[in-house]
Amino acid sequence: AMADDEIEAAEAAAAELKRGFETLEVTQPDPSVPVYFLYLNRPAHRNALTPISFAELPRALALLDRLPSARAIVLTGRGPHFCAGIDLSSLASLASVPSDDRAVASELLRRRILALQSAISAVERCRKPVVAAIHGACIGGGVDLVAACDIRCCDEGAYFAVKEIDLALAADLGSLQRLPAIVGYGNATDMALTGRRVAAEEAKAMGLVTRVFPSSAALAAGVTDLARGLAEKSTVAMTGTKAVMLRSRDLTVDQGLEHVATWNAAMLMSRDLEEAVRAQIEKRKPKFSKL
Amino acid sequence: AMADDEIEAAEAAAAELKRGFETLEVTQPDPSVPVYFLYLNRPAHRNALTPISFAELPRALALLDRLPSARAIVLTGRGPHFCAGIDLSSLASLASVPSDDRAVASELLRRRILALQSAISAVERCRKPVVAAIHGACIGGGVDLVAACDIRCCDEGAYFAVKEIDLALAADLGSLQRLPAIVGYGNATDMALTGRRVAAEEAKAMGLVTRVFPSSAALAAGVTDLARGLAEKSTVAMTGTKAVMLRSRDLTVDQGLEHVATWNAAMLMSRDLEEAVRAQIEKRKPKFSKL
Amino acid sequence: AMADDEIEAAEAAAAELKRGFETLEVTQPDPSVPVYFLYLNRPAHRNALTPISFAELPRALALLDRLPSARAIVLTGRGPHFCAGIDLSSLASLASVPSDDRAVASELLRRRILALQSAISAVERCRKPVVAAIHGACIGGGVDLVAACDIRCCDEGAYFAVKEIDLALAADLGSLQRLPAIVGYGNATDMALTGRRVAAEEAKAMGLVTRVFPSSAALAAGVTDLARGLAEKSTVAMTGTKAVMLRSRDLTVDQGLEHVATWNAAMLMSRDLEEAVRAQIEKRKPKFSKL
Amino acid sequence: AMADDEIEAAEAAAAELKRGFETLEVTQPDPSVPVYFLYLNRPAHRNALTPISFAELPRALALLDRLPSARAIVLTGRGPHFCAGIDLSSLASLASVPSDDRAVASELLRRRILALQSAISAVERCRKPVVAAIHGACIGGGVDLVAACDIRCCDEGAYFAVKEIDLALAADLGSLQRLPAIVGYGNATDMALTGRRVAAEEAKAMGLVTRVFPSSAALAAGVTDLARGLAEKSTVAMTGTKAVMLRSRDLTVDQGLEHVATWNAAMLMSRDLEEAVRAQIEKRKPKFSKL
Amino acid sequence: AMADDEIEAAEAAAAELKRGFETLEVTQPDPSVPVYFLYLNRPAHRNALTPISFAELPRALALLDRLPSARAIVLTGRGPHFCAGIDLSSLASLASVPSDDRAVASELLRRRILALQSAISAVERCRKPVVAAIHGACIGGGVDLVAACDIRCCDEGAYFAVKEIDLALAADLGSLQRLPAIVGYGNATDMALTGRRVAAEEAKAMGLVTRVFPSSAALAAGVTDLARGLAEKSTVAMTGTKAVMLRSRDLTVDQGLEHVATWNAAMLMSRDLEEAVRAQIEKRKPKFSKL
Amino acid sequence: AMADDEIEAAEAAAAELKRGFETLEVTQPDPSVPVYFLYLNRPAHRNALTPISFAELPRALALLDRLPSARAIVLTGRGPHFCAGIDLSSLASLASVPSDDRAVASELLRRRILALQSAISAVERCRKPVVAAIHGACIGGGVDLVAACDIRCCDEGAYFAVKEIDLALAADLGSLQRLPAIVGYGNATDMALTGRRVAAEEAKAMGLVTRVFPSSAALAAGVTDLARGLAEKSTVAMTGTKAVMLRSRDLTVDQGLEHVATWNAAMLMSRDLEEAVRAQIEKRKPKFSKL
Repeated sequence: AMADDEIEAAEAAAAELKRGFETLEVTQPDPSVPVYFLYLNRPAHRNALTPISFAELPRALALLDRLPSARAIVLTGRGPHFCAGIDLSSLASLASVPSDDRAVASELLRRRILALQSAISAVERCRKPVVAAIHGACIGGGVDLVAACDIRCCDEGAYFAVKEIDLALAADLGSLQRLPAIVGYGNATDMALTGRRVAAEEAKAMGLVTRVFPSSAALAAGVTDLARGLAEKSTVAMTGTKAVMLRSRDLTVDQGLEHVATWNAAMLMSRDLEEAVRAQIEKRKPKFSKL
Repeated sequence: AMADDEIEAAEAAAAELKRGFETLEVTQPDPSVPVYFLYLNRPAHRNALTPISFAELPRALALLDRLPSARAIVLTGRGPHFCAGIDLSSLASLASVPSDDRAVASELLRRRILALQSAISAVERCRKPVVAAIHGACIGGGVDLVAACDIRCCDEGAYFAVKEIDLALAADLGSLQRLPAIVGYGNATDMALTGRRVAAEEAKAMGLVTRVFPSSAALAAGVTDLARGLAEKSTVAMTGTKAVMLRSRDLTVDQGLEHVATWNAAMLMSRDLEEAVRAQIEKRKPKFSKL
Repeated sequence: AMADDEIEAAEAAAAELKRGFETLEVTQPDPSVPVYFLYLNRPAHRNALTPISFAELPRALALLDRLPSARAIVLTGRGPHFCAGIDLSSLASLASVPSDDRAVASELLRRRILALQSAISAVERCRKPVVAAIHGACIGGGVDLVAACDIRCCDEGAYFAVKEIDLALAADLGSLQRLPAIVGYGNATDMALTGRRVAAEEAKAMGLVTRVFPSSAALAAGVTDLARGLAEKSTVAMTGTKAVMLRSRDLTVDQGLEHVATWNAAMLMSRDLEEAVRAQIEKRKPKFSKL
Repeated sequence: AMADDEIEAAEAAAAELKRGFETLEVTQPDPSVPVYFLYLNRPAHRNALTPISFAELPRALALLDRLPSARAIVLTGRGPHFCAGIDLSSLASLASVPSDDRAVASELLRRRILALQSAISAVERCRKPVVAAIHGACIGGGVDLVAACDIRCCDEGAYFAVKEIDLALAADLGSLQRLPAIVGYGNATDMALTGRRVAAEEAKAMGLVTRVFPSSAALAAGVTDLARGLAEKSTVAMTGTKAVMLRSRDLTVDQGLEHVATWNAAMLMSRDLEEAVRAQIEKRKPKFSKL
Repeated sequence: AMADDEIEAAEAAAAELKRGFETLEVTQPDPSVPVYFLYLNRPAHRNALTPISFAELPRALALLDRLPSARAIVLTGRGPHFCAGIDLSSLASLASVPSDDRAVASELLRRRILALQSAISAVERCRKPVVAAIHGACIGGGVDLVAACDIRCCDEGAYFAVKEIDLALAADLGSLQRLPAIVGYGNATDMALTGRRVAAEEAKAMGLVTRVFPSSAALAAGVTDLARGLAEKSTVAMTGTKAVMLRSRDLTVDQGLEHVATWNAAMLMSRDLEEAVRAQIEKRKPKFSKL
Repeated sequence: AMADDEIEAAEAAAAELKRGFETLEVTQPDPSVPVYFLYLNRPAHRNALTPISFAELPRALALLDRLPSARAIVLTGRGPHFCAGIDLSSLASLASVPSDDRAVASELLRRRILALQSAISAVERCRKPVVAAIHGACIGGGVDLVAACDIRCCDEGAYFAVKEIDLALAADLGSLQRLPAIVGYGNATDMALTGRRVAAEEAKAMGLVTRVFPSSAALAAGVTDLARGLAEKSTVAMTGTKAVMLRSRDLTVDQGLEHVATWNAAMLMSRDLEEAVRAQIEKRKPKFSKL
């Protein structure tokens, strides 16, 4: 059911993924299950994000987006911590612009920040669902990253901090924009102005994560199950639901309703729907197309 | 204090309500209390919504809107479940459009979806407060429906599921637009992408319901009390608060402030306000006008 | 590092603050700590808000905004209650407009409401973080006021009520606009339509406060610590984070991202950032500039 | 290619149209041409709009919307003038609300205005293109009405005035909302604040009309040709273009682009497109489906 | 029909206006006609705007806003030119911020720009209509200023230039925000990117002015007539129309319609409306209340 | 004044541009003048746009964006016509998606349209000013393309048509989104619904072009002059003005004002400003930095 250029793109993506990354690791734990794990992979540095991370992250997500065998993605970290945020020396070099013309420096700095933001937003641009599995520290840029994910899970030892305030800057990679809708404006302000640690349980209470697992192992098992469940669902419904929710976030309710009506005018009459209805009537599990 | 055409409309509405509905039941339990119950009434089918439901629901709400004796409305379901969502065969026929011209079929499908959405949004168009009383299953279209209500209560056995994903489609009757503001964007995404059941307690924790009652009987008693309380308040304040909140949802804070200032420029100087102030000074319960 | 006119303005502000207020009290408990307390100070009237309160509140906040020695502000109330809302006789006189031309009366009333709203929004216009410390009753206008604060804390005996509905009016000083983003749309509607009391614990669960302290004394100590912590952070980061969050609240996510990128293009390359990075490398506490 | 319920609706619409209207006249000048004329038909009163007009207008447009033989609509007026605006006594009765409770009166008045607005907006809700043919006076409510049309033409003697200012009120039926996008904000303000007459030529220069014909007869012939041309085009393209433009008016450019991409995902692959492409290759006129 | 505090405010305003301004002149040419002229009054410097201008302008407009004898305002310039824009040395001092901390300097600069913008926007905050009468040069800040006016007239020798590009900066006092809605996005871009002169005739063609008079004297006479006409209209309708149009500019059409319905629910039932209807029936000129 | 990575990027861009394009031609007519011409270069096909055009266009603009020697860009066409729109066979293949699953086909089609839109929007993403020089036919996709340019000029023989309606589809590459702001909503609707030709003079009158030159040669000379003038201005001011205007297009006026204040907080204190002020005082032409 795929177009030729789609198939070609998929094969190229698979090949490029195989060549690997410097700061990331991408694996498909079980070849028979269309779930991929995307690891932040600088455990010696608590997976702090470098310019290379910011280049590789959107690339990896774009490749997974094209891969039919990837129907759900788990974003997690190697080592004891999810992510310590942006690497300190990267931050310093980001901020040091080689110009003594103030406007020239500002313009360049602005473009650099936009590029970093775009790397984070790649999680949203990816049509497949992205589940964040968080253990240990999730700080600064780490929070920016998971705030762009679709579902957030953590283990009991995980903690979160919008730490930018302690680096004397306003967080600029998305937390201030995405957190209020996730945890409420009051909780988001508290976190952003104080930079304090929020532990797993409080994170659950405020909606920052939706599931807390008792251990790191349980987290791994839990998100594997969760992702497997997502991967079994209809792709057209899954990508549609993600896309429609992201779009509705920025529209009025009426505009969002009209948008999803138009969306489903195009996407509703699928074979997957026929199969789902048939399966429900026959009281069996549906088998959705592998597009 | 009513205009002639208002009185006429009220009488016609009362007459039409008396004739009854096929899929709904409307009752006023206590004639001395201006509270109406609106039941989904297909208990044998777990109150699954059919094309007739979608036609009758906005009609019933429009009639209650015109009825001075209806100052608060409770929306609930007959039988053990609140609502199993859209009826499966209705969904199938909705999606099967008799045209082999793809564009013609899409255009017709889009209009049908808009019509269903409009039936759900009738809850918001109704000026009176609508309290959802949920027990048993509240699934798919059921969630769309309660998401449009003003206050949601349930008993301990109730559960909620944005089940459309398992029918291979993106929910298109309002849940994806209204839930994020109610439960937070993260909880909404988790529910919409996984289709999982959310039980009463979790629903309370995430703000999906604001009150959980220990039993079905307690729920009935509780919402009756709640609705009675709403019905005792000033109508002009009640309808104003509902209207202003719905409008503010889609405006910036500044625009919302200016809007409510303009609203109250028109609506504040009421007899009810005079009465409320007087009652407060005299430390007695106010008696508001029955408009 | 301040401009001449800035210094002048700061001195004038200090002098004016010293002259005091009729309905407020402003203190700096510890001259060595740049934290100010702003008290609602009509304890005999449960700090009910009068026209004078509405005039003094924005004035006090504007003065504190200009004062370099004020880097964090605590807003609280003298006596056993935080605030009983708008004073009843003030409300009555607000609503009684001396004109028998309905349009003239409406126009004047609208301007009066806009003026009151502006007094509440002064909390947001103030660039410094404002922490609300709430004990006892926080009702009506009191909720409007704390909803505009950046962080809300209370003690266990505090309770909240959007009480306007019982005065037969739609709340028009910001609660209907700001609460939904703080506590979720469902909780906000429940509070606004019923006017019911929400106790400390429930307030915490819904995000209305982020911290509950076991006693009034613990609250005082807690917010003092919290405010001191805020005051120690970089001013440019603190005011930037507050401003960016307020702005992002009314923009789409993409617009908000571009906005903060532009903001940081101007504000990121600060000495505070250099100091923060150096301090982190040297594993010591940073010393931020006192601007 | 129509669904059964569509056919039924079309037949019912045709029957109802045949029964006629009190203030309107609907004709299909040439049964072989799918163009309808909708006349304001109170020439003795310069087609001033009464409550009946406001009830009949949306009804007539809804019926034409369902009629396959109506592929383009011309809205014009019988007699020497297009429309003198809202009828004076109707306005007086609109404003006189039988309640001495100010809030009750305001609420009722607000609903009445919303109902009148909805009658005007029916022109936009109609999926078919509506061409206004204006001669003589087009004043007040007349301008509101034509501002909601898709294309506006007039003869040389026509003139336009946003006359509400001289009735001591702010225009509330759409001119203040729609005119600025049509004629520019400056021209709209000039018209609305002064109430001055704008003659045909100036109307053309500011974009209020797009075509001026030298005489009333030439106008009739011109719009007939224009409407015939519209009626020959693909219906799916025509209704799509109208709908997409109206929606884009209220979205950001990026949101509008995504919206039309989704729209065309549903509507592009039509037989009309195949026919259009084939016709273009064969250098002949296309024959579009009559849906 | 005025409240006591209104009368007091009016008297204070009259007194302050009498004391005069350094860079402005305010006159009421004919005491029997409620029209005021507000002159930019630094003819030796082509009325270039200084920090004092930016302080006096909003002050003068706020005073005129409170003055019942001012029902229309003409904004014009003494000497041969309307306004040469922001004074060069003022610009230089604005941009030279006495801090070597880049962030501190930026923050201060941002606040200064916001203050200048607020001075320009005072024209919109003034509830009365403001007519710009432009002769000679209208450059840079001059264009920002007239873009905020309600009606713009000029004589044949007038010319306009968004000159900021030639000072190596992006215009930041409103032209880039307000011009596109007035002259169209394409004309606005051409003017802003090239900084070229637009003469009176082209300004008329693109909607930048709505009336061009053949000479400076004719301009003075013309705007006097125009303003006198505005001053004769109903104040409640005039201020309402201005306010509603400004608000609608930033809302969707549907939101704007609901807003004006709410507005008129408050403001429509005026004595002026009764008088207007009566006058129209009696075919005489209405006499509106002097509020 | 450039960063190392900037220099590298510039050199790579120059090299890639030198390798040339299949459907485009890029030239710098005068090496001493930082103006580039970007030609649509399929004159035998009236420069109809193919999939390759849509791939090359954003690439070429991204390269020019990085090139310091490109300070202004002229977009024009080789041969007698500017652009005949999207190539017919490209359109046919775009619409024929190789899937018999309706939803799969729709999803793929939607992505293809988004990709084409992105190619057009590349004109706006390019920070440098892009001037369209239009002669002969500018149809369909050609109008989409020029609507995204900053300034539009044409010769007297040019004509414009939003021709998609005659291909039985709703235009989906930006005309329906961008034209209304350029020519007014009424002119845009007329063009889009009728598909009629608009000649140069009418295009000028409605703001679609801002300059009409008497001949093709005059057009070439005129835009060369115009672009040279743009290239002489301060780059920081030019890119800032373009960026701020594009952003303000989608914000409220207040949001736009705050945005440009923040922008200039970062970008105002440039050497170019100092030079501009000095030059103005010394009454000489400024020499801006070549960044």
